[in-house]
Amino acid sequence: MNPQTHPWKNWKHITKLDPDKSLSPDDLETIVGSGTDAIMISGTQNITDTNVGQLISLLKDYDIPKILEPATPEAVLDGDLVDSIFVPLVLNAGDLKWIVGKHKDWILNHKIKWEKVIPEAYIVMNPESAVAKLTKSKTDLTSDEVLAYARYAEKYLRLPIVYMEYSGTYGDPTLVKRLRDSLTEAALFYGGGIDSQVTAAEMLRYADVIVVGNVVYTDIDKFIETIP
Amino acid sequence: MNPQTHPWKNWKHITKLDPDKSLSPDDLETIVGSGTDAIMISGTQNITDTNVGQLISLLKDYDIPKILEPATPEAVLDGDLVDSIFVPLVLNAGDLKWIVGKHKDWILNHKIKWEKVIPEAYIVMNPESAVAKLTKSKTDLTSDEVLAYARYAEKYLRLPIVYMEYSGTYGDPTLVKRLRDSLTEAALFYGGGIDSQVTAAEMLRYADVIVVGNVVYTDIDKFIETIP
Repeated sequence: MNPQTHPWKNWKHITKLDPDKSLSPDDLETIVGSGTDAIMISGTQNITDTNVGQLISLLKDYDIPKILEPATPEAVLDGDLVDSIFVPLVLNAGDLKWIVGKHKDWILNHKIKWEKVIPEAYIVMNPESAVAKLTKSKTDLTSDEVLAYARYAEKYLRLPIVYMEYSGTYGDPTLVKRLRDSLTEAALFYGGGIDSQVTAAEMLRYADVIVVGNVVYTDIDKFIETIP
Repeated sequence: MNPQTHPWKNWKHITKLDPDKSLSPDDLETIVGSGTDAIMISGTQNITDTNVGQLISLLKDYDIPKILEPATPEAVLDGDLVDSIFVPLVLNAGDLKWIVGKHKDWILNHKIKWEKVIPEAYIVMNPESAVAKLTKSKTDLTSDEVLAYARYAEKYLRLPIVYMEYSGTYGDPTLVKRLRDSLTEAALFYGGGIDSQVTAAEMLRYADVIVVGNVVYTDIDKFIETIP
């Protein structure tokens, strides 16, 4: 992969917007102008071509980098209006369709703009999250197992991004630090429970990029605090 | 991956030796001097540290490139006496341990010489083979599904080798040709049923590398015919 296809190399903060939730035009303008490095359009539940299309359309006049992260690979839109398509696989999924099956069907049934596609290796950590339930993720992992998954993604698959997904809860900074110390090539993304300057700063000590989502919908001022 | 780590770029023919089968010293010398490009130490059944170690030891005075292809990732020896360790994942496995689980455990429990490790994306095609049974491979695939798996390996995972494994039977040259026409970056390996000049030449029209195994043990003269 050449450097041009690593747009996140200078990023620290991504805002994840959920097509199933609504935002006022004012809030959207605040978010885009907040200093966040990119907008990721993502979500696990009730994601449709219609609501994804609407959100992309609301963002189209803004110059900020736009990433589509489809809920499942089959749901990738054509990607014309976004800069990148981040397509996850879930390393600790309990069902292999979240590692290879859905991806195979996606490739089978679509003409793919590969130059926009970035693979992400997710490790799903919160058993209560929608994504953990959907993917039947095995979350009772030792720290060493988490590190082994991450090294599998980095050293064996050579994927560019390892994504620690605590979706809906705040993660373990000690574990994120161990990942930081273990990875040498992949970028480390962290998502989950960041809702203040303190939590943002703590995870940014170890992660290359933090992904901030829910607080956008609950407290826009707190969201602004998370910008580094 | 840099070019030095693609030793197979100039190869056309690999001889796969099974540590569970025996060869006379004369036959071994014939094989090594036959013009085959590399020796792969591999096998699915009754593979032990002892018989793998014995075979490596028999080969150690020969200058030919030596590849260890462990039956399962946990069975990787330290690799001191081989040039490369080719570690498969099985794209169409029915059990996710053959895609990520065994690899994770391998990384968890071993100090790995990553500079020797080459990942291979297997597609297992013969339902009667030991490897298909072991990995519960889904072999009733349409040609388009096989192509989608191969593109997943090449375009999404960016793995360097796609390995069409017909183990024990001769494959479909039409499908191998379609793979040839579809892949642009990954090397295409073909294995299964090559036992003559004709079958070797036919598959080499499409595959970058053919892997020849069983005939070594049944008819050494026929084996020699398979060398391009």
